[in-house]
Amino acid sequence: MGRNAPSRLSVLRLGHRRDRDKRITSHLGLTARAFGADEVVLAGDRDPSALETWNSVTERFGGNFESRFEESPLSWLRRISKSGEATIVHLTMYGEAWRDATPSIPTDKPAVVVVGGTKVPSEVFHLSDYNISVGNQPHSEVAALAVFLDSWLGPLDSKSMFEGAQIKVLPSARGKVVINDDEE
Amino acid sequence: MGRNAPSRLSVLRLGHRRDRDKRITSHLGLTARAFGADEVVLAGDRDPSALETWNSVTERFGGNFESRFEESPLSWLRRISKSGEATIVHLTMYGEAWRDATPSIPTDKPAVVVVGGTKVPSEVFHLSDYNISVGNQPHSEVAALAVFLDSWLGPLDSKSMFEGAQIKVLPSARGKVVINDDEE
Repeated sequence: MGRNAPSRLSVLRLGHRRDRDKRITSHLGLTARAFGADEVVLAGDRDPSALETWNSVTERFGGNFESRFEESPLSWLRRISKSGEATIVHLTMYGEAWRDATPSIPTDKPAVVVVGGTKVPSEVFHLSDYNISVGNQPHSEVAALAVFLDSWLGPLDSKSMFEGAQIKVLPSARGKVVINDDEE
Repeated sequence: MGRNAPSRLSVLRLGHRRDRDKRITSHLGLTARAFGADEVVLAGDRDPSALETWNSVTERFGGNFESRFEESPLSWLRRISKSGEATIVHLTMYGEAWRDATPSIPTDKPAVVVVGGTKVPSEVFHLSDYNISVGNQPHSEVAALAVFLDSWLGPLDSKSMFEGAQIKVLPSARGKVVINDDEE
């Protein structure tokens, strides 16, 4: 994790629909990983292929990013909300402006960032400590997650974040620079 | 457009595949609109449904965002590169780090931000004035576009950006505040 990051950062993807959301959900989990989350938690349709994609990227590109399926996301959020064990941040186009809100979101305990699909139950708005919008325009939960995490956590220490990578891509103004440490 | 924004900002989506990329491309265009682009240019499969989605959102949520299909994106980029009429920025996980690069990208002329799908021709790397990565990890072109535009252009003047909206969502910490100006 970067500086001032919660001790554990989870991204909960609500309402996944296997066919319609396949690639959006896949991108969402990869975005969570790339911007510093420790795990993605999938709810909605049980879809092993999403978890396989995320695990495969982690295996090749390093780090300890985890993924799992959650049967009862609302029960899980209710428990967290009641115990106060983690901060719940809900990303929604109806929320308060991220630029105003991020500085006040605590980073001294774990956090769960909730990302809806369609039809998020209104209870989620109430269980959440923060309802945050990245602009109040319709766009993409993938875009919202990336901008929010980047704004909240700042630059990652990507060297430590993605330890054990078989494949490393190095920044380059021209052409591709890829280091392949796969020893097979 | 926000401050220090190019006079015209286009986002070119390369290699769209109608079935596989439907929702990613849709989110990409909406993200372009929400983060201050003037138009999205679709290349690859000719897919009227993508343009319909973007136009429908613009009609309801305001602004002058445009969309069109481009049959020959490489010819278009070659022409722009040769004339120097616009800055070409290619977003790629192989590029140089966005935090380092964005301050030096000029905003005093139009710009085209190129977003690949799979298999971007290597010529695009050479035609582009900047090859920019948002992290060198695999994640999502939607995430990359949002973070790049937000970082490059800064806060938008969304009041002027999205004039003429029938639907306005206002920031709110709890619940949804939606103003519907549709006069029908």
